[in-house]
Amino acid sequence: MANSKFEYVRHFELATTTHLLPNTHIIIRIDGRAFTRFTAAHNFTKPNDPRALHLMNACASAVLTDLGGGAISLAYGVSDEFSFLLRRECDLFDRREAKLVTTVVSIFTAHYIALWPQYFPDIPLKRPLPSFDGRAVCYPSVQNVRDYFSWRQADCHINNLYNTAFWALIQKGGMDAKEAGETLAGTFAKDKHEILFSRFGINYNNEDAMYRKGSVVYRNYGAIPESTEDEKGDEAQEGEPATSSKQPLEAMKGKSRSQQKREAKKLAKAEIVIEHVDIIKDEFWEKRPWIVHWTLGRRNEYAGTEQ
Amino acid sequence: MANSKFEYVRHFELATTTHLLPNTHIIIRIDGRAFTRFTAAHNFTKPNDPRALHLMNACASAVLTDLGGGAISLAYGVSDEFSFLLRRECDLFDRREAKLVTTVVSIFTAHYIALWPQYFPDIPLKRPLPSFDGRAVCYPSVQNVRDYFSWRQADCHINNLYNTAFWALIQKGGMDAKEAGETLAGTFAKDKHEILFSRFGINYNNEDAMYRKGSVVYRNYGAIPESTEDEKGDEAQEGEPATSSKQPLEAMKGKSRSQQKREAKKLAKAEIVIEHVDIIKDEFWEKRPWIVHWTLGRRNEYAGTEQ
Amino acid sequence: MANSKFEYVRHFELATTTHLLPNTHIIIRIDGRAFTRFTAAHNFTKPNDPRALHLMNACASAVLTDLGGGAISLAYGVSDEFSFLLRRECDLFDRREAKLVTTVVSIFTAHYIALWPQYFPDIPLKRPLPSFDGRAVCYPSVQNVRDYFSWRQADCHINNLYNTAFWALIQKGGMDAKEAGETLAGTFAKDKHEILFSRFGINYNNEDAMYRKGSVVYRNYGAIPESTEDEKGDEAQEGEPATSSKQPLEAMKGKSRSQQKREAKKLAKAEIVIEHVDIIKDEFWEKRPWIVHWTLGRRNEYAGTEQ
Amino acid sequence: MANSKFEYVRHFELATTTHLLPNTHIIIRIDGRAFTRFTAAHNFTKPNDPRALHLMNACASAVLTDLGGGAISLAYGVSDEFSFLLRRECDLFDRREAKLVTTVVSIFTAHYIALWPQYFPDIPLKRPLPSFDGRAVCYPSVQNVRDYFSWRQADCHINNLYNTAFWALIQKGGMDAKEAGETLAGTFAKDKHEILFSRFGINYNNEDAMYRKGSVVYRNYGAIPESTEDEKGDEAQEGEPATSSKQPLEAMKGKSRSQQKREAKKLAKAEIVIEHVDIIKDEFWEKRPWIVHWTLGRRNEYAGTEQ
Repeated sequence: MANSKFEYVRHFELATTTHLLPNTHIIIRIDGRAFTRFTAAHNFTKPNDPRALHLMNACASAVLTDLGGGAISLAYGVSDEFSFLLRRECDLFDRREAKLVTTVVSIFTAHYIALWPQYFPDIPLKRPLPSFDGRAVCYPSVQNVRDYFSWRQADCHINNLYNTAFWALIQKGGMDAKEAGETLAGTFAKDKHEILFSRFGINYNNEDAMYRKGSVVYRNYGAIPESTEDEKGDEAQEGEPATSSKQPLEAMKGKSRSQQKREAKKLAKAEIVIEHVDIIKDEFWEKRPWIVHWTLGRRNEYAGTEQ
Repeated sequence: MANSKFEYVRHFELATTTHLLPNTHIIIRIDGRAFTRFTAAHNFTKPNDPRALHLMNACASAVLTDLGGGAISLAYGVSDEFSFLLRRECDLFDRREAKLVTTVVSIFTAHYIALWPQYFPDIPLKRPLPSFDGRAVCYPSVQNVRDYFSWRQADCHINNLYNTAFWALIQKGGMDAKEAGETLAGTFAKDKHEILFSRFGINYNNEDAMYRKGSVVYRNYGAIPESTEDEKGDEAQEGEPATSSKQPLEAMKGKSRSQQKREAKKLAKAEIVIEHVDIIKDEFWEKRPWIVHWTLGRRNEYAGTEQ
Repeated sequence: MANSKFEYVRHFELATTTHLLPNTHIIIRIDGRAFTRFTAAHNFTKPNDPRALHLMNACASAVLTDLGGGAISLAYGVSDEFSFLLRRECDLFDRREAKLVTTVVSIFTAHYIALWPQYFPDIPLKRPLPSFDGRAVCYPSVQNVRDYFSWRQADCHINNLYNTAFWALIQKGGMDAKEAGETLAGTFAKDKHEILFSRFGINYNNEDAMYRKGSVVYRNYGAIPESTEDEKGDEAQEGEPATSSKQPLEAMKGKSRSQQKREAKKLAKAEIVIEHVDIIKDEFWEKRPWIVHWTLGRRNEYAGTEQ
Repeated sequence: MANSKFEYVRHFELATTTHLLPNTHIIIRIDGRAFTRFTAAHNFTKPNDPRALHLMNACASAVLTDLGGGAISLAYGVSDEFSFLLRRECDLFDRREAKLVTTVVSIFTAHYIALWPQYFPDIPLKRPLPSFDGRAVCYPSVQNVRDYFSWRQADCHINNLYNTAFWALIQKGGMDAKEAGETLAGTFAKDKHEILFSRFGINYNNEDAMYRKGSVVYRNYGAIPESTEDEKGDEAQEGEPATSSKQPLEAMKGKSRSQQKREAKKLAKAEIVIEHVDIIKDEFWEKRPWIVHWTLGRRNEYAGTEQ
């Protein structure tokens, strides 16, 4: 059978494949499709369903684990969305946009379905099944990346404060949705705090940090104990001090390539942690420099420093 | 909290969102990731595992059902891949590339996991879970679309004939993989037919059509019985003849917009069928003109005819 | 000097070069930059300056001549803009968008400056010099291409009728711009015709066709006399009838590749003509089928017919 | 005339217009088309024609002058190519790729033709006229930008050393091109220096810097005398020290928006200089920080610092 006379169609794909601009940070954000209907059909609790959020976090962890070589350095989730950061040096799939974004979406979706029974043992999944869409966006500077995550976490705060007050008015205040909406219309943050406290005795700041801050997922490279004799292997005799766990990036500078590879392997093996902490202020980033800075990789020669 | 000062980051996404060229046919192809390892780990039968193929087909049907408004007019699957055709008039998601391709991948993946136990009741899914990547490509002409599907079906034939002979040599001929490979090296199609028949009494043309032809999934609009009085509603008095089921497209010409909408609704409700037939020759396409030709939709005014 | 350590920067260009979708018609439109100011500074006559329009047409002809291999099959100009059509089979510069659009803009600009003294012998060019911007857009169907040119010619008509009336009111009616604008506000085409005729004795339909229809530039392939014995060369003995000048495309069908090449050479040598004719109706296109249809070229095997 | 029914074609352009990624440095490089033939036809001197290089530099200066608002901060030229740097904050033409690159190409071309007689008074331009193609590429970091220009200047050095030796062997050594090529095959830089010196008494380092280093074109903002009383206007009473000409960027920090605007205006008015200096080492960039760093502009709020 003459396949060759049809093969020209491959050219349409090759000619139009999009590669993401090198040396930019990539953020892939996925969102639940039609989750308003889905959450209603599966009896999610309001304003937050901890089972659903823990399921989302487990799926994000799976993406970090399954996607090759520690490509994703940070994930941040709130409600039915999750954002994944790939370092600027990343050359996974030769930075093909469609391949990157579909792979993240597919791994996430697979785990959402597979893990559902663990988190919702009493609620069988009904059709239409939950699914997610996604998009990849490039950000040229670390400041842009930090502002992106600040944007999502600020959004989380604004929405959760509103939703907490809204559902308190309904569930504890006996209002219907229309009344609750009118009560909150035009109020500022301090007003919502006041409504929660004075009417329902709720101190918003004591609400679960997962609801207020969202979920931050990353490999805790900094917490890895110093490399053992066994790991150091034949570089040991070079007399290099072991990597300080406090300053992993500083320790990287001036290291030999084989040492850098060893560090990369350690990072890929580092435990994945899920935290509910502030990522708007500097502290989170200053203490975890490996999240945005890393110099190892096939193309590190041109990633350069930003300045 | 001042969200506004971070919101500028949205501009990076808006400025770089890719929309697929209007008035082109869109084909989204998805492929299993690392399925060589996955199929080995889950004991797929060789050269074809009918459970796995039926599962793939069920997932493709689900995509046709779940994706809005009958957007997909044809799907063709072989092995661990499936290709989905969206008509040139399609303006789903405003033709945003990432949204289209991730949604198809996610719906497919969700069903692959959810339906797995029905097709592999004795084999629990192990991690890493199966996942799929995808890409969308535009094809400007009907000929290009037909050549694309011819390419995939010709590929199916070439691969399946080889694999059938290869595994017969191993499973029935007692060879190891190296010997089987060497036996087939440099052979033509007729040689493989001959090996199968003379050594193992296998007439390749009697092999399951699903293995030889792949799977074609579409809505059988042409088979719908003529519209009932009830459906015709207030257009009935216009004296139009009922749509002929044999020539749905011809019948569309010169119809009023409300009649066209009624036809579109019928198409969206038409039964999804799964067939294992030739899609290289003209017959398949000539008998099912609605698969590539359709004139309804928000933008049909500019889709025009190709000539 | 170590150039190699810097050469990685080439990858940024390679990774992000845009290729236009194969098998689509390409239209490159160029527009004068800041021509309101430029025409005022160089005393263009109003509402139309024939010297400027003839200069534009000469530049468009030069683009057809200078750009390789007859790539451009049609150009249409009005005011300070020109649109160039490249056939869907075109693979000039491997269809790299930036290369195509900048080359057309640059050739056009070069001739605008170089030919200026011929058309405006008494008006030296002043800085800022005239320049042009451009963009390339793909159109998948012949209908889209025809609608594009209809859009431009309809625009030409609407604008020229308005401008003719507007400047008649000023130049012959003694109005100022404000009064003329108010007189025309809300009028229909027939009203403007009436104003021109009743107040100034101008029959708009007798105005110069170049103003009313714009300028159509193309190679008059159909008008070429039949190939001479000399040109037919060694194919002569094949007994093929000479190409009919009336039906160049029909004559192409079923021809050998060497004959097709000969025809392509003839097309590339055909005289460039500049006409001011209707390109909205079918006649123009039906009589000049080679403008949108051509089947020769490296990739003609996959261009296919549209139907 | 019904224009509206054709206007849908505009959607094809709107849907596919490419915007360059925000907050990245843009470099537009233009190249002479078919200049080997063009330079031969116009008797350019070899290995370098100073008239042609000065003409190129004059055209680049014109681009800096004509393109709005000081958008281009640096241009670097060698042979028949020129590269233009637009600051990362640049939002000219809303960063539309085609508009940016065609405008630069067109302005450059217009001046090349218009200024030709000044530089080649005895050689009339022949057809085909000289023209240029172009492309725009984004670079995310200052290091990438510096490496880009280092790449071009290193290329200049390598090519010019070769060409100088090659043409000396021909023009002074009496070789033909084949002999000269064979003589230089496999030689290193020091060998070429030696050939030039020992055979022809040429000290390569005394060759014209324009040939060895290429041409650097930029606005000499740093050299501007301190703003006069008149310019300071109503900000004068704020008691701010006048901008130090030595550290323009440092002086910018912490300034009010009106002061920043004043500085931007000064930059746009600064004299354009053409130099033939090293741009690989740090010194050039350290002394002229405004070339890559600038914080004024509509979107400066999100450009941020790179670190």
